[in-house]
Amino acid sequence: MAKGLVFVGLGLSGIGGMTVDGLEALRACDRIYAEFYTSKLIDTDLSELAEAIGKELTPVTREQVEEGRFIVLEAKKSRVGFVAAGDTMAATTHLDLRIQAAEEGVPIEIHHGISVFSAVPSALGLQPYKFGRTVTLPFLEDGYHPRSPYDNILENKLRGLHSMVLLDIREDESRYMTAKQALEWLFEGEVKWQGGLINDDTLVCVASNVGSRSERLTAGYAGEMLKRRDLGDPLSTLVLPGTLHFMEAYSLVTFAGAPEELID
Amino acid sequence: MAKGLVFVGLGLSGIGGMTVDGLEALRACDRIYAEFYTSKLIDTDLSELAEAIGKELTPVTREQVEEGRFIVLEAKKSRVGFVAAGDTMAATTHLDLRIQAAEEGVPIEIHHGISVFSAVPSALGLQPYKFGRTVTLPFLEDGYHPRSPYDNILENKLRGLHSMVLLDIREDESRYMTAKQALEWLFEGEVKWQGGLINDDTLVCVASNVGSRSERLTAGYAGEMLKRRDLGDPLSTLVLPGTLHFMEAYSLVTFAGAPEELID
Repeated sequence: MAKGLVFVGLGLSGIGGMTVDGLEALRACDRIYAEFYTSKLIDTDLSELAEAIGKELTPVTREQVEEGRFIVLEAKKSRVGFVAAGDTMAATTHLDLRIQAAEEGVPIEIHHGISVFSAVPSALGLQPYKFGRTVTLPFLEDGYHPRSPYDNILENKLRGLHSMVLLDIREDESRYMTAKQALEWLFEGEVKWQGGLINDDTLVCVASNVGSRSERLTAGYAGEMLKRRDLGDPLSTLVLPGTLHFMEAYSLVTFAGAPEELID
Repeated sequence: MAKGLVFVGLGLSGIGGMTVDGLEALRACDRIYAEFYTSKLIDTDLSELAEAIGKELTPVTREQVEEGRFIVLEAKKSRVGFVAAGDTMAATTHLDLRIQAAEEGVPIEIHHGISVFSAVPSALGLQPYKFGRTVTLPFLEDGYHPRSPYDNILENKLRGLHSMVLLDIREDESRYMTAKQALEWLFEGEVKWQGGLINDDTLVCVASNVGSRSERLTAGYAGEMLKRRDLGDPLSTLVLPGTLHFMEAYSLVTFAGAPEELID
């Protein structure tokens, strides 16, 4: 494919977090756009990436990708790369760009990247097919505290399913919700809605910077986890486990420091 | 890490489907074990992989991995790789191996691979956080037709969630459930349990060999899909969409050939 739009997911961390094919595909591009508003790069930066690929990377904002037309027009005339951390098609704006390109008859190539959606269960040793719907917690601001994330996690729990809880990102302000803030979010929700989702004795897991040098996996009871200072830096993902299979409990004890009584 | 156990997920296809770091990590191994009973390699084979890595790969059976002790003992004395298609920790036997290694004090390194769990939603343009629990359909044999997969998909549907439906694999017999068999499985279930999960007009998607040269995405009404012969070869994944966001419907029409009336 000499002309067209090449989506490459950069994966979880570093310059070596993308696939071998993805790196090859980028090396053959005439120009590469990079967006980091949906996630951020861990253990690397733009200039190190550019050096590994052997091409400059041009950062683009959310607004530029939303408009997107200039990228599509360029991909009609040359080979244009578009990279993002994690997988490449999880964000709606990326999907929109792909649809626009298809409608203009632009050839499209996709190199999937590793996503927290599969890596977090893997790292914690939780079975991926036992996760219910994934939930995102938005920052609490000006009294904004939507109920649906709370309800969705509770619904998973009542079905015995694990919940993956993604935490809000404001890349433009370099603000990333911490695991502690996420736990407080849920405790405040419990006070308001009293569904029995969380109390001091609820088992919770935090996976920080999964797949990177600074990966940290922690599991424990929510009351005690709130007081800890070693939950790792953002990006963090919270997991509220549902019913645990023996091997899953064993894994949380062995790899995330969960209380041994889980496997007694 | 000079000695220890290195897990590398080979990703979706080819020799370039693993990460750049994963390939490096394997090149530094003294010996590499490879298992293909949970999935199979697409667009490559063992000898091509061995050539790319520069090391022989020793295939292991499910029984050998279940026992696993010889791998752990070897990893105490040298650097041992363990590879599988897709991600690396999704199978319980792999997790068991990791736990055994940890208990023996063996250093562990994990290089996640790209998994259908994130790539199938991505390829179809369905939002990953709108998937409910994942379901696996086992082969129908000797009147064995468990109800729980049917019930779990129905429960997702009633919540408006998408269902990813993985299809049975018998690697030892080279048998892979086809999309057509999976649809028949669900139709037979409907006759038995009559929950209103599927009829001729239910929208279903098939993603075959995602992320490979032979990738094929198809979406349409179940009655019509059953008659089609172009659903792609196994490995296939079936998706029963829940409530579709406009952009998701648009994506299924554009990339999977779903009926245009979805976006009318």
